[in-house]
Amino acid sequence: VALPFDFGSRDPRFIEIVADVRTRLVGLATAHGGDAFTAVPIQGSGSFGVEAMLGTLCPRETRTLVLVNGAYGRRMVHMLQVMGRACEAYEVPENTPADPEAVAARLDASPDLKTVVVVHCETTTGLLNPVEGVARVAAARGRRVLVDAMSSFGAVPLDAEVWGLDAVVSSANKCIEGVPGFSFAVVRRSTLAGSEGNAHSVSLDLHAQWLGLERDGQFRFTPPTQALAAFRQALLELEAEGGPVGRLARYTENQRVLLEEAASLGLETYLPTALQSPIITTFHQPADPAFDFRGFYDGLASRGLYIYPGKLTQANCFRVGTIGRLFPEDFRTLGAAMRSVLAAQGVTDARGPRVAV
Amino acid sequence: VALPFDFGSRDPRFIEIVADVRTRLVGLATAHGGDAFTAVPIQGSGSFGVEAMLGTLCPRETRTLVLVNGAYGRRMVHMLQVMGRACEAYEVPENTPADPEAVAARLDASPDLKTVVVVHCETTTGLLNPVEGVARVAAARGRRVLVDAMSSFGAVPLDAEVWGLDAVVSSANKCIEGVPGFSFAVVRRSTLAGSEGNAHSVSLDLHAQWLGLERDGQFRFTPPTQALAAFRQALLELEAEGGPVGRLARYTENQRVLLEEAASLGLETYLPTALQSPIITTFHQPADPAFDFRGFYDGLASRGLYIYPGKLTQANCFRVGTIGRLFPEDFRTLGAAMRSVLAAQGVTDARGPRVAV
Repeated sequence: VALPFDFGSRDPRFIEIVADVRTRLVGLATAHGGDAFTAVPIQGSGSFGVEAMLGTLCPRETRTLVLVNGAYGRRMVHMLQVMGRACEAYEVPENTPADPEAVAARLDASPDLKTVVVVHCETTTGLLNPVEGVARVAAARGRRVLVDAMSSFGAVPLDAEVWGLDAVVSSANKCIEGVPGFSFAVVRRSTLAGSEGNAHSVSLDLHAQWLGLERDGQFRFTPPTQALAAFRQALLELEAEGGPVGRLARYTENQRVLLEEAASLGLETYLPTALQSPIITTFHQPADPAFDFRGFYDGLASRGLYIYPGKLTQANCFRVGTIGRLFPEDFRTLGAAMRSVLAAQGVTDARGPRVAV
Repeated sequence: VALPFDFGSRDPRFIEIVADVRTRLVGLATAHGGDAFTAVPIQGSGSFGVEAMLGTLCPRETRTLVLVNGAYGRRMVHMLQVMGRACEAYEVPENTPADPEAVAARLDASPDLKTVVVVHCETTTGLLNPVEGVARVAAARGRRVLVDAMSSFGAVPLDAEVWGLDAVVSSANKCIEGVPGFSFAVVRRSTLAGSEGNAHSVSLDLHAQWLGLERDGQFRFTPPTQALAAFRQALLELEAEGGPVGRLARYTENQRVLLEEAASLGLETYLPTALQSPIITTFHQPADPAFDFRGFYDGLASRGLYIYPGKLTQANCFRVGTIGRLFPEDFRTLGAAMRSVLAAQGVTDARGPRVAV
């Protein structure tokens, strides 16, 4: 089969790509503290990277505090439970950000909580958690801070050094706009160096993966070469767009147009604007009984427009992503298509339910 | 970035590709017993698939017998140790196949050895293990049989139903000639159905991955969409080549030409012909002190010809793969290039050392 990149994983050109990608990822994670951090790519989807981060960096004989306000926080609790690591979930409603003061109180109450884990943008809703505030209270108490920045990294501001993070994980196919195939963690070197033998898995061991990369520049196991090569190109395109600042500006404008179009249809957002990231936006499904989500989804998909089903436990919603190779005019197109599909369904009132379902 | 396939993982066209790929994989694993098996693709390299197979299918409170005659057998022992599963290594020298009678004796001696794991083609050397014989003695004793068929699946004959296997694992980028990005297991449904909650990992849980695929046709976590689409095309090309029989014929002819070229240079194979798979061939490095492996490797690589370093613990070797989109004339080209590089190094005697180093 013909794909644009076809060279072996031991090819010096490929090894150079991996090295360049690692350097650029550290640069995206922190403006000035690069020497203290290293980037470790690992095969698989974003969840593989999250699990690798947890398994490698949550010490076995201690407890971990996981902030939960959506499916991705809950998934991390589940991962820790499956790998037999003790953890405590600090759970707040899906429309509520984690509270740094509450985190501080829990850490003060439980000295054995050595690690704090938080999702930056909870893609369940699009809510942005106050990672900087959480990290500051945790770091001030000598705790380790691990961040799932899956859908925010490369666009939403974050500085691993300034904020005092130990690790940040994301994947190839979110804000950096590569193709799926691997994820990566940017990790504080001193934290990683002290984590030998801690992982629950050989494949998902960030420490062993790091040693392999440092030894010969290669992945320990066959890397997704095409996805890596595409990712380097994606990093160059990110730089050409003005880096995270430029990319965030486009995503923000994408969302502004989306919200304008949705408002003109009467669609209501689930989150208040102040909590809403520009990554993905959750809307209430119209309360009008004529509304049929499956038909709505399929009608848009048939026009090449893909929305996401809701992922909330408390409300009937759908979600619209504003990241990826998308531009404001795409959201004008989406608005017109939503109008057309809703009209065809006979939906006359697109306002959502005011009560939880 | 532009890659040939760019559609979402929830797109019906993608879901159809995944379903078709799964059906075809079962067909490759067994000629007539398809109903008893199901195929479960999982993100990551081949080692991720092997670890998923071991973690999901080696029961926690029992022991596993691992046949070891190379790096891949050893890696499985390491994986089981890291995940805290008791195992016994049946180790024989790297130039010696596993012996079914010895396996039978170990199983008879230790009733708690509930599972047997064996590598089909040990890529360390190219040695082909007698999987059918091992599986028959194990299955006759009611034991579970798991096979790492990474580098053989799709070309070297194997029948999961006839041989009594419980699972076979391989990856996208070996004999099926796709691009790297995922691996897959073909698993006996009854074995898989009884494995809920056994895995050590959320990401590498074949049972949960299977439930997700059966529920809505989708991977639980973001799939490498491009790699899957390329793999379906690769499966169609395999079929067009006459299936595994046709592909094996090409690989066998590739190796025949390679061996002829190597013999004309005086290069000696590490394994006797009877033990040698047509997948990868191990050669002794020339004993001539003028020989420099790094220069040899680089000289071939500069011509676009990639060999593998040796992976043996007992001898200085190098390896040449004969799988992938390669044809007999490519091995004539390789022979001429090896002749040229050896001559430039001043190697006059390409025979290898007769003593272990």
